[in-house]
Amino acid sequence: MGIVVQKYGGSSVSDAEGVKRVAQRVVDAKREGHDVVVVVSAMGDSTDDLIALAQQISPVPAPRELDMLLTAGERISMALLAMAIGNLGQEARSFTGSQAGVITDGTHGKAKIIDVTPGRIERALEIGAVAIVAGFQGVSQDSKDITTLGRGGSDTTAVALAAALNADVCEIYSDVDGVFTADPRIVPSARKRDRLSYEEMLEMAACGAKILHLRCVEYARRYQIPIHVRSSFSQKTGTWITDQEVEVDDMEQAIIAGVAHDRSEAKITVVGVPDKVGEAARIFEALSDAQVNLDMIVQNVSAAATNLTDISFTLPREDGQHAMTALSRVKDQVGYDSLLYDDKIGKVSLIGAGMRSHPGVTAKFFAALASAGVNIAMISTSEIRISVIVDEAKVDAAVTAAHTAFELDSTDVEAVVYGGTGR
Amino acid sequence: MGIVVQKYGGSSVSDAEGVKRVAQRVVDAKREGHDVVVVVSAMGDSTDDLIALAQQISPVPAPRELDMLLTAGERISMALLAMAIGNLGQEARSFTGSQAGVITDGTHGKAKIIDVTPGRIERALEIGAVAIVAGFQGVSQDSKDITTLGRGGSDTTAVALAAALNADVCEIYSDVDGVFTADPRIVPSARKRDRLSYEEMLEMAACGAKILHLRCVEYARRYQIPIHVRSSFSQKTGTWITDQEVEVDDMEQAIIAGVAHDRSEAKITVVGVPDKVGEAARIFEALSDAQVNLDMIVQNVSAAATNLTDISFTLPREDGQHAMTALSRVKDQVGYDSLLYDDKIGKVSLIGAGMRSHPGVTAKFFAALASAGVNIAMISTSEIRISVIVDEAKVDAAVTAAHTAFELDSTDVEAVVYGGTGR
Repeated sequence: MGIVVQKYGGSSVSDAEGVKRVAQRVVDAKREGHDVVVVVSAMGDSTDDLIALAQQISPVPAPRELDMLLTAGERISMALLAMAIGNLGQEARSFTGSQAGVITDGTHGKAKIIDVTPGRIERALEIGAVAIVAGFQGVSQDSKDITTLGRGGSDTTAVALAAALNADVCEIYSDVDGVFTADPRIVPSARKRDRLSYEEMLEMAACGAKILHLRCVEYARRYQIPIHVRSSFSQKTGTWITDQEVEVDDMEQAIIAGVAHDRSEAKITVVGVPDKVGEAARIFEALSDAQVNLDMIVQNVSAAATNLTDISFTLPREDGQHAMTALSRVKDQVGYDSLLYDDKIGKVSLIGAGMRSHPGVTAKFFAALASAGVNIAMISTSEIRISVIVDEAKVDAAVTAAHTAFELDSTDVEAVVYGGTGR
Repeated sequence: MGIVVQKYGGSSVSDAEGVKRVAQRVVDAKREGHDVVVVVSAMGDSTDDLIALAQQISPVPAPRELDMLLTAGERISMALLAMAIGNLGQEARSFTGSQAGVITDGTHGKAKIIDVTPGRIERALEIGAVAIVAGFQGVSQDSKDITTLGRGGSDTTAVALAAALNADVCEIYSDVDGVFTADPRIVPSARKRDRLSYEEMLEMAACGAKILHLRCVEYARRYQIPIHVRSSFSQKTGTWITDQEVEVDDMEQAIIAGVAHDRSEAKITVVGVPDKVGEAARIFEALSDAQVNLDMIVQNVSAAATNLTDISFTLPREDGQHAMTALSRVKDQVGYDSLLYDDKIGKVSLIGAGMRSHPGVTAKFFAALASAGVNIAMISTSEIRISVIVDEAKVDAAVTAAHTAFELDSTDVEAVVYGGTGR
């Protein structure tokens, strides 16, 4: 049998008992005959504790040093996991990101993986050991400084290692059973998906499903690494994410893969922008210079009488203040009237490769929202996704209405806990 | 001005305030014009916390993984210190033992430094930065695994770096003002020594003075690195340790450098050993095979009637059970009568290069002990030291009596706290 890469999130190793439970799973996989590489996150909330410590020391800690600090978290969890596996009679060796050959660029706090040279991991596997690798971290190519990969970093480490080692599968363990058709805290009848295409998972991740980070799925798609999202608290099969497209005659596959939602965005409207070539460009240049990431952008047709238009866009709430400042600075240059800021919004998205071949999805979606009394503020679509911005207070109603309208409700409801996988 | 290496112990960086205080001292030294390299221990009790965590996971953790775990402690303190220094407007960069070029053998838990190749430290100094180095850790030459140096490891790191960088001085900071003539908790009138020779400091460290570890002083003597032992809580001059011998006409220098004591040993007596060539050797071979480190050894003249002798020796209490087992195993081979074990003992030592040229020190010491009602169980001497084993309950009385007899008492008593420097 081939190589299996398993990634365990912080909630799976939050205390000594958790570490021992994960160790047993790792040993089971090894005894089934696999070569096992384990990527592990920091224990529970330990990263947050380290960040709090840094903030006591300096309001703006040096990024290089913050990375040095935070990587202590995985160092602890990986060493403990190696000990626990050793205690079960199985040889195990832990490796830092640097030792595992995770080479990144030099962008501290959100470094990108440039290359993976897992020679030491391969040698550990050759002697029959389990290799434990610190997630979320690497070493910069130029300066050899320790870097961290930012949000979703441990998942990305796991997929990148799986690609470099030509692994059969990358298993991502957390405290949920897989990817659901909607957040079960909102829709108790949500069902676990048995499988999804990379494309569908990419759209779901981009639309607020926290179970996998966008970067990790992009990496897996590029290198065609099958991902198995599952729970470390049960033996159940989770959700397989592969390049398998929805087959039309596959009765199990619904048109819609799931309903995602996201409450982390805010909306800014630039009111009264002169409808001339280049005005919009100036606005987005200012936002780009301020390093603001935009999501949806809508420009209304200008009113003929005034030749003025409104431009609305959504962005992460944490960038809101920053973006407003950047726009205020170019007010005279652009010549707009005013700015409106709204962070009481939510995004609800319908995702499914099946909608390609099924016309009428949009109409059905909007009808369901209307029946539930949900007003639509903005719309954005891709080939396999429809997203709408609604009042934040209406997000639950919108998700539930869409889930029911597309017949995703299960009659066989399980008690599940739906949460993020942290880093 | 040249390079100064400063080492701060865990008690100096036990919380955010401590880290900021140390940062200010470092920046002060840098602004005086020195190139500053800082070696830092883990914060307060964090190493003990990590060990406790490991013990929850495995009764006998793999040594390689225990080293990986424990080195997380310095990673945290050094990154925080670098941030705090940065916050004061001074560029600072932290380096792990491996990054700092601390090359060791592969003995996990008590690795020895083989070489120091501080290229990255030198480059950091060249660009005007302060270099922060994790104490207590290195990387093994052969397997490139992370190692720890064991007790006194951070002090040793500091001295080894000072030697490799050709530094002017290695400053060892802790929560005490320097090296005292006796433990001020026992002798409130103990005085801080202004200077000591390496030889005296070696004997004091070997005899229980916890302020500096033996290995660190040995390293400093070999490479002739002046050590300045001082407090991070005050600006006072501490104790200088150099190769300067006591000058006979130096009125400040007393005959005796100080009185050290040690309550960490136990005594084993092998009763009724046949007084034949090779019997003692068999006993010590058995102890050596069991990796037991002995300190004092005494063999009585054998009683002519029986031709049997008793052999007593002292050893670390933690090795006591182990040694007793090893000796029991060779009972028939050696043919001794019985074993006696006593861990209610203490060692009191008088140390001073001055005793070389002053006869009568031994007589005066023993007379002082007799006056204080202290019985002597064993005696051991070197050229500049006299050690006696006494009843553990009499240690304080013995230290006080010796301190007074050799006129070490100060009339100018300061409130001091005397403690170990941890690692």
